[in-house]
Amino acid sequence: MQPGGASQWQIATLGTARLDSPLKPLIEARERSENYVDESDLVLVDDVLSTACERGVPVEQLPGLEPGGPRRKIFFDPSKLRAAIVTCGGLCPGLNNVVRGVVDELWWQYGVRRIHGIRNGYEGFIASYGHEVLDLTPASVRGIDEQGGTVLGTSRGQQDPEEVVDCLERLGIGVLFVVGGDGSMRGALRIASVVAERGLKISVVGIPKTIDNDIPFIDHSFGFQTAFARAAETIRSVVVEARSTPHGVGLVKLMGRHSGFIAAYAALARNDADFVLVPEVPFGLDDDADGRPGLLSLVQQRVAERGNAIVVVAEGAGQDLVPGEGVDASGNAVLGDVGRYLRRRLLDSFAEAGRPVNLRYVDPSYAIRSVPANGYDAVFCLRLAHAAVHAAMAGRTAMVVGRWHGRFVHVPTELAISRRNVVDPHGDLWLSVLEATGQPPRIG
Amino acid sequence: MQPGGASQWQIATLGTARLDSPLKPLIEARERSENYVDESDLVLVDDVLSTACERGVPVEQLPGLEPGGPRRKIFFDPSKLRAAIVTCGGLCPGLNNVVRGVVDELWWQYGVRRIHGIRNGYEGFIASYGHEVLDLTPASVRGIDEQGGTVLGTSRGQQDPEEVVDCLERLGIGVLFVVGGDGSMRGALRIASVVAERGLKISVVGIPKTIDNDIPFIDHSFGFQTAFARAAETIRSVVVEARSTPHGVGLVKLMGRHSGFIAAYAALARNDADFVLVPEVPFGLDDDADGRPGLLSLVQQRVAERGNAIVVVAEGAGQDLVPGEGVDASGNAVLGDVGRYLRRRLLDSFAEAGRPVNLRYVDPSYAIRSVPANGYDAVFCLRLAHAAVHAAMAGRTAMVVGRWHGRFVHVPTELAISRRNVVDPHGDLWLSVLEATGQPPRIG
Amino acid sequence: MQPGGASQWQIATLGTARLDSPLKPLIEARERSENYVDESDLVLVDDVLSTACERGVPVEQLPGLEPGGPRRKIFFDPSKLRAAIVTCGGLCPGLNNVVRGVVDELWWQYGVRRIHGIRNGYEGFIASYGHEVLDLTPASVRGIDEQGGTVLGTSRGQQDPEEVVDCLERLGIGVLFVVGGDGSMRGALRIASVVAERGLKISVVGIPKTIDNDIPFIDHSFGFQTAFARAAETIRSVVVEARSTPHGVGLVKLMGRHSGFIAAYAALARNDADFVLVPEVPFGLDDDADGRPGLLSLVQQRVAERGNAIVVVAEGAGQDLVPGEGVDASGNAVLGDVGRYLRRRLLDSFAEAGRPVNLRYVDPSYAIRSVPANGYDAVFCLRLAHAAVHAAMAGRTAMVVGRWHGRFVHVPTELAISRRNVVDPHGDLWLSVLEATGQPPRIG
Amino acid sequence: MQPGGASQWQIATLGTARLDSPLKPLIEARERSENYVDESDLVLVDDVLSTACERGVPVEQLPGLEPGGPRRKIFFDPSKLRAAIVTCGGLCPGLNNVVRGVVDELWWQYGVRRIHGIRNGYEGFIASYGHEVLDLTPASVRGIDEQGGTVLGTSRGQQDPEEVVDCLERLGIGVLFVVGGDGSMRGALRIASVVAERGLKISVVGIPKTIDNDIPFIDHSFGFQTAFARAAETIRSVVVEARSTPHGVGLVKLMGRHSGFIAAYAALARNDADFVLVPEVPFGLDDDADGRPGLLSLVQQRVAERGNAIVVVAEGAGQDLVPGEGVDASGNAVLGDVGRYLRRRLLDSFAEAGRPVNLRYVDPSYAIRSVPANGYDAVFCLRLAHAAVHAAMAGRTAMVVGRWHGRFVHVPTELAISRRNVVDPHGDLWLSVLEATGQPPRIG
Repeated sequence: MQPGGASQWQIATLGTARLDSPLKPLIEARERSENYVDESDLVLVDDVLSTACERGVPVEQLPGLEPGGPRRKIFFDPSKLRAAIVTCGGLCPGLNNVVRGVVDELWWQYGVRRIHGIRNGYEGFIASYGHEVLDLTPASVRGIDEQGGTVLGTSRGQQDPEEVVDCLERLGIGVLFVVGGDGSMRGALRIASVVAERGLKISVVGIPKTIDNDIPFIDHSFGFQTAFARAAETIRSVVVEARSTPHGVGLVKLMGRHSGFIAAYAALARNDADFVLVPEVPFGLDDDADGRPGLLSLVQQRVAERGNAIVVVAEGAGQDLVPGEGVDASGNAVLGDVGRYLRRRLLDSFAEAGRPVNLRYVDPSYAIRSVPANGYDAVFCLRLAHAAVHAAMAGRTAMVVGRWHGRFVHVPTELAISRRNVVDPHGDLWLSVLEATGQPPRIG
Repeated sequence: MQPGGASQWQIATLGTARLDSPLKPLIEARERSENYVDESDLVLVDDVLSTACERGVPVEQLPGLEPGGPRRKIFFDPSKLRAAIVTCGGLCPGLNNVVRGVVDELWWQYGVRRIHGIRNGYEGFIASYGHEVLDLTPASVRGIDEQGGTVLGTSRGQQDPEEVVDCLERLGIGVLFVVGGDGSMRGALRIASVVAERGLKISVVGIPKTIDNDIPFIDHSFGFQTAFARAAETIRSVVVEARSTPHGVGLVKLMGRHSGFIAAYAALARNDADFVLVPEVPFGLDDDADGRPGLLSLVQQRVAERGNAIVVVAEGAGQDLVPGEGVDASGNAVLGDVGRYLRRRLLDSFAEAGRPVNLRYVDPSYAIRSVPANGYDAVFCLRLAHAAVHAAMAGRTAMVVGRWHGRFVHVPTELAISRRNVVDPHGDLWLSVLEATGQPPRIG
Repeated sequence: MQPGGASQWQIATLGTARLDSPLKPLIEARERSENYVDESDLVLVDDVLSTACERGVPVEQLPGLEPGGPRRKIFFDPSKLRAAIVTCGGLCPGLNNVVRGVVDELWWQYGVRRIHGIRNGYEGFIASYGHEVLDLTPASVRGIDEQGGTVLGTSRGQQDPEEVVDCLERLGIGVLFVVGGDGSMRGALRIASVVAERGLKISVVGIPKTIDNDIPFIDHSFGFQTAFARAAETIRSVVVEARSTPHGVGLVKLMGRHSGFIAAYAALARNDADFVLVPEVPFGLDDDADGRPGLLSLVQQRVAERGNAIVVVAEGAGQDLVPGEGVDASGNAVLGDVGRYLRRRLLDSFAEAGRPVNLRYVDPSYAIRSVPANGYDAVFCLRLAHAAVHAAMAGRTAMVVGRWHGRFVHVPTELAISRRNVVDPHGDLWLSVLEATGQPPRIG
Repeated sequence: MQPGGASQWQIATLGTARLDSPLKPLIEARERSENYVDESDLVLVDDVLSTACERGVPVEQLPGLEPGGPRRKIFFDPSKLRAAIVTCGGLCPGLNNVVRGVVDELWWQYGVRRIHGIRNGYEGFIASYGHEVLDLTPASVRGIDEQGGTVLGTSRGQQDPEEVVDCLERLGIGVLFVVGGDGSMRGALRIASVVAERGLKISVVGIPKTIDNDIPFIDHSFGFQTAFARAAETIRSVVVEARSTPHGVGLVKLMGRHSGFIAAYAALARNDADFVLVPEVPFGLDDDADGRPGLLSLVQQRVAERGNAIVVVAEGAGQDLVPGEGVDASGNAVLGDVGRYLRRRLLDSFAEAGRPVNLRYVDPSYAIRSVPANGYDAVFCLRLAHAAVHAAMAGRTAMVVGRWHGRFVHVPTELAISRRNVVDPHGDLWLSVLEATGQPPRIG
């Protein structure tokens, strides 16, 4: 998708169905304002200019993204439109906020009256699973944002895109909102391709979900702040344990298959960790040939110096050290259990050294992702939902909504899944972790 | 201060005092990395390019800010440096996190061993108040980040900058960190001026604090997310009340003297408000001459339609309607009490209309600002503190640390106090509020 | 009602309608157990025996209450029974837990299928208010216990008991559960009288609600623990404020019209208060003729000695000092605002003494009573609801469920409203307050 | 120790050292009150009188306990007394509240100025461990009650009582407060025996700690309410997971080695569990010979009927089904991991039946016991500490403080460890669980 309208098959005028919409005065107000989203507006992809290398480049040649927001003209006729929303993959704080936000916005701002909830992820499109389709209204979604989880249900894994589009056609859906992760967005792209092949006019708009914060073009993915704050509470529990016993070692395993954002932010939030281990930064357990100390030595040393030590490990860290265990229903590799492995190795290393140790291991697992969204994420989910609805009504497709440098933007789905956001071992976040923990940049 | 080094009076090499610093390997690591903060790096002030009007402008001519972070060379000799930190003005979640972050960073990363806490704001510099000066160490600040308030104490109002600098000289301070709001930053600038007049080498680095989020060049000011989430809980309490009685009206007065950020975000977070009133958007209580309904009619109408109505008002809203009450010790105008005024007017309007009403009025006041920082703010305060210490050690002065588009930046203090961040009535935040509440863009 | 069956008009056998009830095996199990509630069991009213005065009294002559729990025989035929529940008066944490508990227990344990929710307190019985009657099922009440307030709505004030009983007859109600306070229980008693006069068989069972904990024969009233814990958070906010400024005084006004339980427990929970003022213990503001210091002197003295002082005042305290303001819709006296009065007098007294002061006044009001029940109260409400259903199904009427010395009991409504539970100025709770605060037993 | 004074070796009069004590006016006030604790007062052990079997028994022959509280005469001279406090065994919410409460009460009410904190449980008495002894003052314990854990540290296991008493003598301790569980109270009793053998006058007063609520003569043990409320949050996390996926099963393992109080109360608090498994009630996994369904069938059936099922299991439940794993340092048996065993068996049973299942298993472990005390427990700990100090100052020894039927009481340590409090399978708590879950009284 290029900014400027390639996805706008046919621009519907703001018809009679919209005359009573509360959005009408808004749009009129914005038309008089210079902040109205113009079709040629851009948000720069990179605003840290290394002036040495980019001197002389005209600004319009810098890469940019289309800003989100309501458009003067919309593509679909709300009085005829049928919309659907589906939530896919693992839970994440804020799913219900997104669902409620989409329903309320379609209903109140655009006057859409037929909104369907697809049950249990992509399974809900496939007749053989027998999941009913829900009718959603502002009344039926009121208050769901105070609950964790998703009222629509979810499931992992893909379904045949041809069958999904069959279902969309059968239901007469014009706009499909997909809330999901990496794999689900690939699925959405396949659905959009089938839609295009069949010459249909069905917008497929993604709202990217990843509790691990590893989606590009999203400053923080929704639910991330809630999740790492909850993870920080778990860190606190082992800190309390470790400091209440002699020779206390606290070990916490947190979510983060490919990226260490939750581990890094939770450790900074609690600010009591001595070691943070993430997938992006390899580490060794044993001292290396040059005598550089490995993790086991460093932990022993920290206990000797300060009486206790706290280790935070992302589930995807140190996967070169532990064997993996196949793949799950979504096709994601099942990771080796680095937490239990570290627990064993730490206990052994203290035993070998003849030193006492009181090790507490905690794996909060699902407890982190099933909580309701906190204040910030509640606002963020609501505004993402607004942006997704505006994009869909304007006829955008094969895109996801993002937030880049404080602006809501449209990101082509292809771009959004082309790479993964990771903790940059040379960036300022990891530097903050090294500063806060005092751990050496290289371990083992 | 211009980016690029004007404030660097004399660059100290990384002397022998630093040999054992954990930062050394970090700096070495970053020297090998392309992400190292180069003295000529810039963060663009505006990255939403209206391509129509800016075509052809070379990028280096766009306005920019110096990025924060550690520098290859530092100005002060840590083994000789004496640093001080002071917290000024009203409470804000995260003050203790900033204090702890500054102390830990100076101590562990730079090896500074003499760090003083000035008691009770600028009063602490003035002998006649009799406040002692505290010695701060990592041990003495451990755990303070789990408490609200500030362990240093605070006070409102200015003190004579000449006396302050006398005190700095007497104590031998080389770096002063000022955590405070608008007025305190003006004070810091006056202190920096006296320092410059006397030809001293004392860095004055500000960490801007405003629970109202009204400081420019800070995406969200520290403590803001914690504060609005707490405010959202208060909204919930009146929502519960209003929905549990027939004809329920809930009225909440929130902080926000000049800007409505807390009111707007809290209302979006709870997502149950019917009307949000902020200082930036005037409103009328009575219907205007053209029959456009005022707030009183709109609230009655909402109660009639939905059974209840929720009004969120920022303390600075509608000040044209209520009389003010002089100025306080910091020289800030004492606002008229818009909450109680609205309460009275709403009760009267229902009574006049012969309609029953159950109005619940809540003013959480201090309860919002005295809570400990949430996870996000804890991380943000810690990283702001790191950035402030890096800036100070690099010899920057008369500046504040900020965060712009996801990057920590240095902002000249003069620029930071030159204007106030407000809710843009034509921007996307206010649009979100109008969409979520359904309130008309213009009331009365 | 006398224990032992006076209210059992006619004992229904456990008929065919109950054959599939999950309670059946329970009852069978209990019939084999010695713990089954026998009709002649008693719970002693007073188990602190002053052996000096009661020697020789046979135990069966001590006053006792009938224990709660399921009975071998029930009075009503569940297949024909229609039950109703109404919530009256001010909000209290746990109302929804009680509603859900009653509905679930009637439905699952006794097989009652017609359960009505009366809207907005006693108003809901009176046709002219136009409130509809709700049908309640386990599905419709699922999850309501996670919300504050009451899904049934509530209102203050009495309605004509003849009209209420007309409504009960019209709806064919056999069992009415009234959740409410002192005044509502008087109303329930009047309803039960009209029922008796008309020779009807309608059980009226009360579940006593008082956020102030002032009901006798209830160790702690439901919602009380949640409420005082929430109040303690408010105390913390002024403690943080008062300790962060020089000469800080924190003043908190808490609920408690006739009893100081919330103030006393909240002060003990936070354990930072210097003075607790309750309705049960008179106090003076000024020093008395004998030089015994009054509150104003004591606060000044505490600020001088420790730098700050915290005062917690129950809304009903010191009513001899402030003028009252008439009566409200429930007929309760509107109290004078002791919080604002103390605030003014404290400020004046510091000003007169020429001493600086930073006074923070917080009145959390509704915020305390609209929160969801905490863990303990959730369990307590559920079990109270079970006890109420068991009592009603066994044909008890004109009674409330209580908890006495760890046992659920049946208390005749007349006894429950005959007196008010208050903080005993000579009891061990008040002693704990005096010990924790260090305030003198007599002030002024 | 018998009620009535057998432990009062020599009654000290309220000497000159006490003249300035705030307690003095209190005691004077109480002397004029009929509520003063008289040496012959009793609290009945059982106040549920089965009138059938106890008719005619004079009340003074019923078993009773000595009430707690301040006495007119105290045994120790506060100006000379040295007191010590030690915390033993696993963490429990409220430990720091007890420590602060004891220190504040000794200092402010009795004027004791030498109070020592023994580090890391009984280890702290044994020189070879090298733990220093802390000096405790109101200033040093201020605010510790807002933290989880224990500032004194703790450890498991016993030490030689002779060595402990050697240490007590060396330090000149007159009063020792032991906060700990079953095993620690046995240790305290051995210490008291050695004290008696040596003819010393050292009071050993226990404050019983058990997160499992299994101590007799304590209505609820301190920290229990906080712990089960925290456990209920964990149940919520699996409920959210199980309801967000098709065929969801949530399994939570909670603390409770010998008693199922935490599992039972947490399940009632969250009120979404389908099965609660506790040590007191055996269960089978497979259907029994008579066709009575076992747990595996029941869970499958519940998933088939309602779409999901929630199982809460206490760690000590079903130990006949899983092999144990030796003993730990305290001599407690290491239990077999019933949670992981159930997880495996449930997965297998669904697989064998060819049914899909999404099972989420959570074991919150330490996260439950390291949180700060909630409001109720904060008050309870404070008052327990007061009662312990009053008892010790009155010369009581070899006893623990308890709370029985709403009264603080003195319980001979021997009696307190003579039996364990368990969930009565025929009592009203378990009945509530059966009613709330709908699980059959007998499984398998």
